[in-house]
Amino acid sequence: MQKSDLLSVYKRIEPHVHKTPVHHSRLIDEIARCEVYLKCENFQKGGAYKIRGATNAILQLSHEERRRGVVTHSSGNFAQAVSLAAKNLGVSAHIIMPTNAPKAKKAGTIAYDGIITECEPTIEAREKASKKIQKETGASFLHPSNQLEVIHGQGTASYELLQEEIDFDFIVTPIGGGGLIAGTCLFVNAFSPKTKVIGAEPANVDDAYRSLISGQIETNETTNTIADGLRTNLGNHNFPIILEHVEQIIRVSEEEIVAAMRLVWERMKIIIEPSSAVAVAAVLYNQKVFQGKKVGVIISGGNVDVENLPF
Amino acid sequence: MQKSDLLSVYKRIEPHVHKTPVHHSRLIDEIARCEVYLKCENFQKGGAYKIRGATNAILQLSHEERRRGVVTHSSGNFAQAVSLAAKNLGVSAHIIMPTNAPKAKKAGTIAYDGIITECEPTIEAREKASKKIQKETGASFLHPSNQLEVIHGQGTASYELLQEEIDFDFIVTPIGGGGLIAGTCLFVNAFSPKTKVIGAEPANVDDAYRSLISGQIETNETTNTIADGLRTNLGNHNFPIILEHVEQIIRVSEEEIVAAMRLVWERMKIIIEPSSAVAVAAVLYNQKVFQGKKVGVIISGGNVDVENLPF
Repeated sequence: MQKSDLLSVYKRIEPHVHKTPVHHSRLIDEIARCEVYLKCENFQKGGAYKIRGATNAILQLSHEERRRGVVTHSSGNFAQAVSLAAKNLGVSAHIIMPTNAPKAKKAGTIAYDGIITECEPTIEAREKASKKIQKETGASFLHPSNQLEVIHGQGTASYELLQEEIDFDFIVTPIGGGGLIAGTCLFVNAFSPKTKVIGAEPANVDDAYRSLISGQIETNETTNTIADGLRTNLGNHNFPIILEHVEQIIRVSEEEIVAAMRLVWERMKIIIEPSSAVAVAAVLYNQKVFQGKKVGVIISGGNVDVENLPF
Repeated sequence: MQKSDLLSVYKRIEPHVHKTPVHHSRLIDEIARCEVYLKCENFQKGGAYKIRGATNAILQLSHEERRRGVVTHSSGNFAQAVSLAAKNLGVSAHIIMPTNAPKAKKAGTIAYDGIITECEPTIEAREKASKKIQKETGASFLHPSNQLEVIHGQGTASYELLQEEIDFDFIVTPIGGGGLIAGTCLFVNAFSPKTKVIGAEPANVDDAYRSLISGQIETNETTNTIADGLRTNLGNHNFPIILEHVEQIIRVSEEEIVAAMRLVWERMKIIIEPSSAVAVAAVLYNQKVFQGKKVGVIISGGNVDVENLPF
């Protein structure tokens, strides 16, 4: 994509989202043996980067489409993001949410006036429930990760990070549905082509890692990871971008995810969710890739259930 | 104190501490019904504001005094602060620490090369152990809250907050030993005299509240509060300043402390310790004082034991 098109995306959403800060810690640098800069989308409206994509998508709907509302299915952060973005823009939002979604994410969605419809925690059940709502209301469907307007919006976090004027060798993002990393690829390729984009994924749910090797979208046999935002598969809109631009995908163990999350909580005093800790863990536990380098990490969100922590 | 003297304090410590950010949340404002700005000393070096006072005190020691090292007794944050400030300035630090100090604070002190001597958790035992070290090593004693150099250093957090150019009606700090609030009073009185300083204290350990009423330093019968940084009494150096400048002291319940801490964790994604939550709780639960006002809150620290949370 052209720089000018990407800048239009940024200008479109800029008035509606926070420009989140970048945090840095000497202690973390010492442990990681590289310079680590955290782009704190946990401080974003709704507690995650996802409002960027949701806002971009809603702003591109026609007046008539906005009047009929939007619908999405999401395990959590995108649900809150669509609810909040829609509320801010005076649009009604229907949210299909699995029965096992984290309590905090459900509460957040309700707080932002999202209209929740619960379904079984399978992709088939989500899609069926969503189609039903579209048929009944005429609402426009927003996909959490596999829709170009959403992908473009998500990439704006990396655009802000690049504006820090740090000469980044790498930008690392978690990879779940693929929207964040695909958007990141587009902005980084346009505005800092020498910076490499790396994906971070739980080893237990390593569909993206296998997809990058096979060249086709692979699926997971289980969703057994604490990183609840990364249990989904890549999609046909984001995968070609990922295949073209992502340098590599690093897999981390569940123990590494929890240790990285705890380290950031204890040393940097910021609350990051397990999905974000996946990206931090990739940097902490792969010194042969990152040693001596300047590394930006997209901290995707901070929505955790504080009553149910892994430590 | 004169503005110029206070500015000298700030210039002295400025190269050695972080200028911490100020965080603000629309959601918290809605709940509190006022504008709340958090001065995030939880992001300070050592995880708390206390390095400001420790650095100011050490920088005023002679070369010979620095060579002999420093000693302090502390339940936690000041221990880490003195260790880190001393380490940064090439000075050795002896720390007297009660046996029941939080694990995270003990680990932090060790990480910064502080030399720990454990003692029983009473003020008498702390003082005795400290005197012994002074006699053996010639180390200079640094008091966590009742020493003018320390008090002046602590006040610099509020100086930075005032530089935000928000027209503050109130600045609220937790009150334990009295060093932070006394230093805050000096800077606020000099640089924004119309801003009122309010102390926040656990109702269970309300010595400062009673002291302000009686006009003399009162003590506590118990130290039964989750706010482990606020279990100590005021001192003869800080109490006169507090008596002269503090508008009022607001007491909060243990339930309010935990609720405020949880709210900030969940909504603002920053880790604050219970002692800081005391100040947030004072604002949240006293709308008749704060409604419609601009309120700065000194978030004193973020050192918590994540394995031992109250929720």
